Amino acid sequence: MTLLTPLMRGTALTAEFSDIQLLQGMLDFEAALARAQAACGVIPATAVGPITQACHAQEFDRQALAESARAAGNLAIPLVKHLTARVKREDPDAARYVHWGATSQDVIDTGLVLQLRAALNHTQRALSQLKAVFAQQAHRYQHTVMPGRTWMQQALPVTWGLKLAGTLDALQRWQERLQSLLPRVLVLQFGGAAGTLASLGQSALPVAERLAQELALTLPDTPWHTQRDRLLEVGAWYAGVGGTLGKFAQDFALLMQTEVAEVSEPAVAGRGGSSAMPHKRNPVSCAAILTAMQKTPGLMATLYNSQLQQHERALGGWQAEWEVLPEIVMLVGHAIEETQPLVLNMQVFPQKMRDNLDITQGLMMAESVTLALAAFIGKQDAHHLIERLCHRAVTSGHSLHSVLVEEPQVMAHLNESQLAALLDPGTATGCAAQFVQRVLARYEEQQHGTELPD
Amino acid sequence: MTLLTPLMRGTALTAEFSDIQLLQGMLDFEAALARAQAACGVIPATAVGPITQACHAQEFDRQALAESARAAGNLAIPLVKHLTARVKREDPDAARYVHWGATSQDVIDTGLVLQLRAALNHTQRALSQLKAVFAQQAHRYQHTVMPGRTWMQQALPVTWGLKLAGTLDALQRWQERLQSLLPRVLVLQFGGAAGTLASLGQSALPVAERLAQELALTLPDTPWHTQRDRLLEVGAWYAGVGGTLGKFAQDFALLMQTEVAEVSEPAVAGRGGSSAMPHKRNPVSCAAILTAMQKTPGLMATLYNSQLQQHERALGGWQAEWEVLPEIVMLVGHAIEETQPLVLNMQVFPQKMRDNLDITQGLMMAESVTLALAAFIGKQDAHHLIERLCHRAVTSGHSLHSVLVEEPQVMAHLNESQLAALLDPGTATGCAAQFVQRVLARYEEQQHGTELPD
Amino acid sequence: MTLLTPLMRGTALTAEFSDIQLLQGMLDFEAALARAQAACGVIPATAVGPITQACHAQEFDRQALAESARAAGNLAIPLVKHLTARVKREDPDAARYVHWGATSQDVIDTGLVLQLRAALNHTQRALSQLKAVFAQQAHRYQHTVMPGRTWMQQALPVTWGLKLAGTLDALQRWQERLQSLLPRVLVLQFGGAAGTLASLGQSALPVAERLAQELALTLPDTPWHTQRDRLLEVGAWYAGVGGTLGKFAQDFALLMQTEVAEVSEPAVAGRGGSSAMPHKRNPVSCAAILTAMQKTPGLMATLYNSQLQQHERALGGWQAEWEVLPEIVMLVGHAIEETQPLVLNMQVFPQKMRDNLDITQGLMMAESVTLALAAFIGKQDAHHLIERLCHRAVTSGHSLHSVLVEEPQVMAHLNESQLAALLDPGTATGCAAQFVQRVLARYEEQQHGTELPD
Amino acid sequence: MTLLTPLMRGTALTAEFSDIQLLQGMLDFEAALARAQAACGVIPATAVGPITQACHAQEFDRQALAESARAAGNLAIPLVKHLTARVKREDPDAARYVHWGATSQDVIDTGLVLQLRAALNHTQRALSQLKAVFAQQAHRYQHTVMPGRTWMQQALPVTWGLKLAGTLDALQRWQERLQSLLPRVLVLQFGGAAGTLASLGQSALPVAERLAQELALTLPDTPWHTQRDRLLEVGAWYAGVGGTLGKFAQDFALLMQTEVAEVSEPAVAGRGGSSAMPHKRNPVSCAAILTAMQKTPGLMATLYNSQLQQHERALGGWQAEWEVLPEIVMLVGHAIEETQPLVLNMQVFPQKMRDNLDITQGLMMAESVTLALAAFIGKQDAHHLIERLCHRAVTSGHSLHSVLVEEPQVMAHLNESQLAALLDPGTATGCAAQFVQRVLARYEEQQHGTELPD
Repeated sequence: MTLLTPLMRGTALTAEFSDIQLLQGMLDFEAALARAQAACGVIPATAVGPITQACHAQEFDRQALAESARAAGNLAIPLVKHLTARVKREDPDAARYVHWGATSQDVIDTGLVLQLRAALNHTQRALSQLKAVFAQQAHRYQHTVMPGRTWMQQALPVTWGLKLAGTLDALQRWQERLQSLLPRVLVLQFGGAAGTLASLGQSALPVAERLAQELALTLPDTPWHTQRDRLLEVGAWYAGVGGTLGKFAQDFALLMQTEVAEVSEPAVAGRGGSSAMPHKRNPVSCAAILTAMQKTPGLMATLYNSQLQQHERALGGWQAEWEVLPEIVMLVGHAIEETQPLVLNMQVFPQKMRDNLDITQGLMMAESVTLALAAFIGKQDAHHLIERLCHRAVTSGHSLHSVLVEEPQVMAHLNESQLAALLDPGTATGCAAQFVQRVLARYEEQQHGTELPD
Repeated sequence: MTLLTPLMRGTALTAEFSDIQLLQGMLDFEAALARAQAACGVIPATAVGPITQACHAQEFDRQALAESARAAGNLAIPLVKHLTARVKREDPDAARYVHWGATSQDVIDTGLVLQLRAALNHTQRALSQLKAVFAQQAHRYQHTVMPGRTWMQQALPVTWGLKLAGTLDALQRWQERLQSLLPRVLVLQFGGAAGTLASLGQSALPVAERLAQELALTLPDTPWHTQRDRLLEVGAWYAGVGGTLGKFAQDFALLMQTEVAEVSEPAVAGRGGSSAMPHKRNPVSCAAILTAMQKTPGLMATLYNSQLQQHERALGGWQAEWEVLPEIVMLVGHAIEETQPLVLNMQVFPQKMRDNLDITQGLMMAESVTLALAAFIGKQDAHHLIERLCHRAVTSGHSLHSVLVEEPQVMAHLNESQLAALLDPGTATGCAAQFVQRVLARYEEQQHGTELPD
Repeated sequence: MTLLTPLMRGTALTAEFSDIQLLQGMLDFEAALARAQAACGVIPATAVGPITQACHAQEFDRQALAESARAAGNLAIPLVKHLTARVKREDPDAARYVHWGATSQDVIDTGLVLQLRAALNHTQRALSQLKAVFAQQAHRYQHTVMPGRTWMQQALPVTWGLKLAGTLDALQRWQERLQSLLPRVLVLQFGGAAGTLASLGQSALPVAERLAQELALTLPDTPWHTQRDRLLEVGAWYAGVGGTLGKFAQDFALLMQTEVAEVSEPAVAGRGGSSAMPHKRNPVSCAAILTAMQKTPGLMATLYNSQLQQHERALGGWQAEWEVLPEIVMLVGHAIEETQPLVLNMQVFPQKMRDNLDITQGLMMAESVTLALAAFIGKQDAHHLIERLCHRAVTSGHSLHSVLVEEPQVMAHLNESQLAALLDPGTATGCAAQFVQRVLARYEEQQHGTELPD
Repeated sequence: MTLLTPLMRGTALTAEFSDIQLLQGMLDFEAALARAQAACGVIPATAVGPITQACHAQEFDRQALAESARAAGNLAIPLVKHLTARVKREDPDAARYVHWGATSQDVIDTGLVLQLRAALNHTQRALSQLKAVFAQQAHRYQHTVMPGRTWMQQALPVTWGLKLAGTLDALQRWQERLQSLLPRVLVLQFGGAAGTLASLGQSALPVAERLAQELALTLPDTPWHTQRDRLLEVGAWYAGVGGTLGKFAQDFALLMQTEVAEVSEPAVAGRGGSSAMPHKRNPVSCAAILTAMQKTPGLMATLYNSQLQQHERALGGWQAEWEVLPEIVMLVGHAIEETQPLVLNMQVFPQKMRDNLDITQGLMMAESVTLALAAFIGKQDAHHLIERLCHRAVTSGHSLHSVLVEEPQVMAHLNESQLAALLDPGTATGCAAQFVQRVLARYEEQQHGTELPD
């Protein structure tokens, strides 16, 4: 952990990508390999105990491993050496069967898949909780009217519930995508030095099957040392979720601006305040989410670029994944973790939303008056009339209502209370509530969905 | 088309993203909207004919549209103006119902979805053909032995079929992913000015349903003006396919180097030759594929970044998609189109592969001798003995075979013909053929898969 | 030009990267090469006329060139063929000396440098004009007080002039950087097939010197076929300028939000209006600038990645530059061109700025009261007292002023008019004016700077 | 440090960006601020000692700081709290003057500039050493002939010295660029809460000047809280240097392929070997450099994107720089450190280079025979004749020499020894040696260049 870790990626996911977990993922592979090979008669059964017992990450000298990795070019080479030495101390014969027939990339890739499985499991739960919070709040605020904004200008009224439902809708698609990627991604890597398992002879496939079983991973049709689309898919999924959350955080920060003030991050002691400026409540959660989202696009560019791995083992592309993929996962994990309490405990100011709707003094509602008048004087005439009156309102600084009531052509057909109703933004949210309902119905439906197998 | 278009993206997909198709996609939306609204009684049935008949892209003044788009900020605003004017000339009344209740983004997004549908259809067919070619060649070359290479150094033998099957295996996963994304992606965009369809009153959802039906698109639960994960998913899919092809092209170019010379691009008159250097055959197809793959990672960074769209319509993120997403599709479409004939007609030089296997004078096969000797003298002793002999071969410059036959400890257990067999790389491809078979079996299975509905 | 060209990159710079200019750049190289080689006695003087006269881009069949480029892998190969054929029709003997001793990359790279020189010239003038506009407006608004905002929340007062000066200050650094990159970048590419000019024998360097002179480019110490830092530098410069302008446009759009309304894009008929929503003025220039800036970071990733060019001519990296570098230049050129009239003609609403300063009801100015009281009761006591009173103002909804005047501990030392002065944000802009002055002084100084030699 | 730190960024530069240095940079700012303010009479002179003495990074509780930073949104807020508490324990009065008038971003940015200065100093020295090594080797190998390669195919001969000189030439431009960026970049950040230094009244500029002096930084014309072009420039410089080194490492790895074998990484015990494959020497240094270069383009995309910082303090863009900029510096620092011993101790195999030149059996030299014959039979006839003979050589599999000596039209003008000389690639390196000399001359010239002031 560095000084910036909690601020940037301070979540349970980060623990899954700690040095200890990195080693343990690789050691779990080595232990399972020994068990699988003993079961298939490739190595003596007596080797299993000593090897398995030596596979505890905590007991390794991490400083020494880190330094040796530089000369070796990867972490597996020194780890296997250290592991062999540890086993040898207990049972010199067993030591000969450590890492039998495997290659560094088998260990590192499968270890990474094991780490990713834990991360995806965790994320799946976090995403469910996040969806629940969005669903609850979309329901709660489905009739809370506020200005919709296009081009960062007020357009027509929407509801806060509709905005929340839009994010929920996207999160549901991300959950769908997650379900379909899991079986592709949770696979064993086992190919030996050049991806042919040549050194295991006839036992190769039986060992591979048993090894996959030991680790509860799928055995893929062929090793994938330099076919990295599975890992790309994981990164792309996380970065995509991050995009959805970044959009929400950006909107939230915009709505929290001093002049807009329609929502606020939860008031938490010691969070987001400024001693020099007592009026300030800084959007610290939004900032955390947006910071993560500044980074993921560039990291994804690296992952895409890293697909071009040479021949049977890459020079650069593979190695770049080691830090980049976990980083994407941790950053987006952080964004998820920051979003959950933000949405759960956010402050919402419906009155301010309502007040902001009045800033344009009714002009926002001009179209509804046009449509009402059209029934009497025809659409085209109605359109031209209202357009002229809007222009008059803008240049005079008067409200549209006050301009309309002075216009005989309008008052011949509509009375003041009808006008007031037509100009009320609170009644002009169209299908907003229906859209929210459709999204919530899908949410209920998806709740009976599948779970990630542990 | 510019001077570089055929070289960079000269395929049928490019035609799908021409100016004409861009306009036609939008005009198809406008025509379908008129039909749907007439069917729902929102606009008079008499308006449909004049509107529909005006929706032919060829008849619009593209220069004028392009210039007006700059001041308007998008292409839909001037297009709707021009369309209205055209309808008005035929039927002034019908002109009042053009684009009724829709917003620019409805037109532009749905138009893009229609273009993407055509592109995805085309790509699906191209991908099937590409898979067929890889399957055929993987089968053909399943026993063609060549050096496997890790770190860009010869490692152990593999087969050319195994390399081809690795790409096929990845392409099959891409096809799976394509199937699962299509229903998410082929959806209508229809929300009106702020995404609530407010101006259509009670008719809003019926019109939306009918409109989706007219265009053979799915009606999503809610408009998605600023939730862009669907389009991101399309871009990510193409860029991922491109990564798989880029890996193949890079390997191919490496294998085609003058000193390696194991494969060659097809000999086609006027392609890849050099008048000044008669010995050269330039890998022009590989270059084309790799050029495309230089660009897609950066374009994906933009798409990820563009997820953060403000409120109900974005300022920058949406607009960036207009050229970036089609560009990704066209670049990868080009890569697919270049790969197909490359794999179909490639020249393969099995003898050169075999010769290259001998460059290390048997050292590549040391491990197999170790394993054979281990049966007689134990694994550890065998390992140390062979290690020593390998070192002797390297420093003396002699072949491993010549060093082995002079070593009594070896010849006590193995005769010359046994040694020759053990040192033969042609017999040391492990599970390569089995892996190829597994991938081909999956290919056969997938052949009975689903087709994209037209 | 496509339908989106004027909207995305509709400037004079785009003309510099048209197909015609692309060809003309290459043809200028070929013509100059013939002149240089004749001057050095390498080719007959009689060949110069026919070659030079054939070097007019307009006369070439661009469709045919484009299509041939796909098979050839670049545009120079078919261009040289067509050029040779054209010369041959006039003078078969001269045709033999076309492109003598040069390689495709010499032609393409030098042609690009010539295009870049024109673009840089143009940009240098545009940047000067842009700086002048910023300088004029920074001066004009140096005392126009408005809220400063941190974390997108009001913080302390600043001036509009200070914000403008901040951009000007950055533009001045960009101008400095431009001056220092020009001599590095405006260089000849001339190396022949492998960068050794082998086919020109003893005449190689004299021809190279003369050729550079003919084109008014510098002769570099060595060809740079696969050393691309010069072109990277050009792209990085443009993208950096774009970043500066993007920051300004983003701020401008934020200030133009309906609720903030401190500035507005110039009112231009037919620009940024919405017929359905008469109150709207869309920030179309800001959108254009921000759209460009969504794209440049990803394009720069490609340029950085393209630095890794193989051996003496690259497979992918070089080819990727052909469209990517001009695209960056055109996008940023567009941003410059959009920014200039925006700043020149922007609407500024000082009263709204002043009103917005009052939203926090004086809390923004709490620190200045603290400092004034400290002179009487000590800093720490002043701090705690005012902190308590601020809290009271926030929870009661009263202004800080009304809370202060009711507090005896305050009124014992300060009278109402003193308080009013202390709470006046208009007097609390610190060094803003001085900073503006310093930036303007540097601007005056830089005005006497160097010009790009034509 | 994590397990992957030494492998990815295990250099002295990484130490400059350690947690301790991060804190110390900020604390150096705080100490200097106290000194400057006391000197200007803003705070009592007695406060300086207690503040300065508390500014030792080692004594802070880093775990606590890290955790508090999450809620605060940056590291400066908890650091100032902890610092104040530490000072208070010694001198409660002095504690009131800690961080007087400064804002978090002043501390963090200036601290970063101080870290960057140390890094740039270090890099400047490393770059000088690297240039010296390249200069030495370019000189040594200036006549070592090898195949030049375009499109990854053999083209014409070059020299190993020319390739080394190409990299040196680029490094010299990077050094030039470094000299011109240093004065722009090594500047103070000091603006207070909104960039106006409002809380310091008349003392603001004097304090700023003195503070800059204390830290040996330049005082910029205005604070640059959201104008980030200076930091961008630093990142861009490092990433550019990395591109140059990545190009070299990629070429080196290509030349080190088993089949090419023209160079090799230095033989260092325990480095790059493989116990299972005794013949392998893995290019671990090249892999390290290429791994770094996979990452920098994406990180640069983030830096470019982060230029768009909102108003007076950003929400995401600023925070993204904290880890991204140091990461770029550390990655490229690692690449520099890996390249130096690689070039110094590389193994070069001139005989293998020579052998590889013969793979095309003389075809590479066809052009030189053409030119020689042209003197006798005219250029065009010579060209056609040799073209025909080359084709005969290719299809027959004979060497060009053997085909030429059987052709009377050739032997009428050239004898066998003349032919042998013309076909000798060793004599066909054109201006290679001259280009190397020009680059070395520039190197000598630049050696008398400026040094970074400490």
